Amino acid sequence: MRQPAPAARAATSSAPGTVGDVRKANLSRVLSVIAAAGDDQRLSRADIAQVSQLTKASVSSLVADLLAAGLVIEIGVHRDGERGRPSVGLVLNPARCVMGMEINVDYIAAGLVDLNGKLLAHEILPRTNHRSTASEVLGALGELSQGLQGAARAQGLMILGGGLAVPGLVNEEQFTVLQAPNLGWEGQELDVAALLPEPKTRFRLFNEANASALAQQHLMDAQDRDFLFVSGEVGIGGGLIIDGELFVGPQGHAGELGHVVIAPDGKACSCGGRGCLETVAGQEAILAAANLGSAADRISRQERMSQLCQALETGAEPAVGAVAGAGKSLGIAVASAMRLYSVSTVVFGGHFAALEQWLRPAMEAGLQAHAPSIAGQARLLCSPLGQTSALAGAARSVVGDLLEAPHLLVD
Amino acid sequence: MRQPAPAARAATSSAPGTVGDVRKANLSRVLSVIAAAGDDQRLSRADIAQVSQLTKASVSSLVADLLAAGLVIEIGVHRDGERGRPSVGLVLNPARCVMGMEINVDYIAAGLVDLNGKLLAHEILPRTNHRSTASEVLGALGELSQGLQGAARAQGLMILGGGLAVPGLVNEEQFTVLQAPNLGWEGQELDVAALLPEPKTRFRLFNEANASALAQQHLMDAQDRDFLFVSGEVGIGGGLIIDGELFVGPQGHAGELGHVVIAPDGKACSCGGRGCLETVAGQEAILAAANLGSAADRISRQERMSQLCQALETGAEPAVGAVAGAGKSLGIAVASAMRLYSVSTVVFGGHFAALEQWLRPAMEAGLQAHAPSIAGQARLLCSPLGQTSALAGAARSVVGDLLEAPHLLVD
Repeated sequence: MRQPAPAARAATSSAPGTVGDVRKANLSRVLSVIAAAGDDQRLSRADIAQVSQLTKASVSSLVADLLAAGLVIEIGVHRDGERGRPSVGLVLNPARCVMGMEINVDYIAAGLVDLNGKLLAHEILPRTNHRSTASEVLGALGELSQGLQGAARAQGLMILGGGLAVPGLVNEEQFTVLQAPNLGWEGQELDVAALLPEPKTRFRLFNEANASALAQQHLMDAQDRDFLFVSGEVGIGGGLIIDGELFVGPQGHAGELGHVVIAPDGKACSCGGRGCLETVAGQEAILAAANLGSAADRISRQERMSQLCQALETGAEPAVGAVAGAGKSLGIAVASAMRLYSVSTVVFGGHFAALEQWLRPAMEAGLQAHAPSIAGQARLLCSPLGQTSALAGAARSVVGDLLEAPHLLVD
Repeated sequence: MRQPAPAARAATSSAPGTVGDVRKANLSRVLSVIAAAGDDQRLSRADIAQVSQLTKASVSSLVADLLAAGLVIEIGVHRDGERGRPSVGLVLNPARCVMGMEINVDYIAAGLVDLNGKLLAHEILPRTNHRSTASEVLGALGELSQGLQGAARAQGLMILGGGLAVPGLVNEEQFTVLQAPNLGWEGQELDVAALLPEPKTRFRLFNEANASALAQQHLMDAQDRDFLFVSGEVGIGGGLIIDGELFVGPQGHAGELGHVVIAPDGKACSCGGRGCLETVAGQEAILAAANLGSAADRISRQERMSQLCQALETGAEPAVGAVAGAGKSLGIAVASAMRLYSVSTVVFGGHFAALEQWLRPAMEAGLQAHAPSIAGQARLLCSPLGQTSALAGAARSVVGDLLEAPHLLVD
């Protein structure tokens, strides 16, 4: 769990009617202590005062605000070996959640994540989004969202905010997809008003691989604070976690592994370049090399990916060769990325995880052949998250924002 | 100039005879105010108190320590429009310096840098270091250092510390070169005791490209806080500056652009891999492609590089094609690095800067062909630093350390 932030003690002035900076920091401090303890410990106000080093009076007042905002609830505590009336413990409110959503090339997805980061429910709907306008896709996603909103209401869950992940470069402040060549979107401002009902305390836009990297981080051991997440879809994305934080680089779009050049004289890429990793190891590239049709066919990509797996099971060419070729190129791109980032752990998601048994030998061979001095230290893992990774990561990030800035709900 | 650090005010305890944490922070604070003002402003103690928000009494006491440690000196101040006796100003002591050194494949170098970061003197000595043991090279560097030490003494300069840059991956704490394939060193612990006389307050080991990136940062505009420095020697290195700081990555060796794979079926590389950028765009690779001999020849690489420039001047093949090929590959590797780091400014040093007029068109074409969507925003600069970059960067880093931690000299 996250580390509690240091308590802020100094007095500062604040305008009338607003939560002052110190109180904001202390609200966050108390909430992070409650969150870090988890549901099992159910800390009392006295426990919180001790851990947070705030006075009991301050803690009582801060907890009152958090209760009023619905971020925490009181719950009876029985401690082992103690008798009598249980003291009152505090836990994160299980009836509050955030909605995560994803638009990818072949599907839309939405899910609800509680304040502990647990994915409560999700839905994935196949949809050929690259044949639709952005507003059509957002309309379909709005319908998917409404279904989950209804389910949330039926369970007494209140939705506090949301996050949306898309397979492209985004400008989060302007809610704009700068480039998503596999969707055919460029400079596309997204009208997300209809995706969630008001009031939305917080709604954010993410690159899909970055959101997935954040979801993956939730699964890693506490000491695993540095890794590259590689997302395999039609496109290939990357999200870099350095010291537990997303590294987005000076221009905000770091990690674009799919457009690392692995063959200077290779095929033309949707980005306008040539020989990018995506042209050999993206889903459509593998399917084409395996002679399993193209995106123009009426048969869906999901169906063709199933056919690919069947062919791989029987060891049939050209499927086996196509996946081996993708694996080798992936190993080469990973070698370059490991050199540039000096990172030793790489986690593969999407079809790279699904095809692991056929892809991994060639990938490891590619890495060994091109970077023998670092291949030995490489830790190459596959993510179990599948198609929920991006929506879960987007939602968890927003949960994290709310826990760090509870005054957004207290004000 | 660097921003002053915030003043530390809270009281903390400290063991008798040592400088307490608050005093350490305030020593650094006062010194950074003096350094930021520069020699022209010559701040008085009252000026320093105002800027640092410390009391005049504190400033007087802290300045006394800095004077005793020889880090600052007093100097008369005449202010425009004021009459009478000049007030006493404070500037960094111009008689203190740090020695920067470099071992590269074809030369050793050393130089003196003052507390303002100015390179006062330097010497570069051609030497075929890959044919020598590490102790032979360190012996030769020790002699070069002694020459500069004599010059420093003659000018009344005291050397406070040093930094050494080498073309390979280093473990700074253990003073070990982990891998420097172009020197033939692997796991080579360096005995640097003889390089500088005692007492050495601080002595550090750097990767050459990282040191050069730090030197380059000194030349950039204040708002240029993010760039990739590409060092071109026999090997090719990279140093990444993010938000004004060196980014070394989780394993500490980020930026190895020379081993980004640009041709999967390319030539074998000194790193044990294949098709690395270095095999096409390193100095020896270009010379071989230009039919200008090999490292085994008796004629020096420096001489052959001169021959290359002569051939380029006359437009002769295969020289022109060799440099164009290197440029194209450099453009491809830079495209991948710009994608992964999301950085838009790249600064080229070493032979890439020296060969700019012949290299740049092919490099730009390579970048445009493989990353058209980011090529337009790319800012591709050449460094004027030449062979002094690594020694100057290493020395300036150590100067920066001393200015941030003056208590090392005050204690």
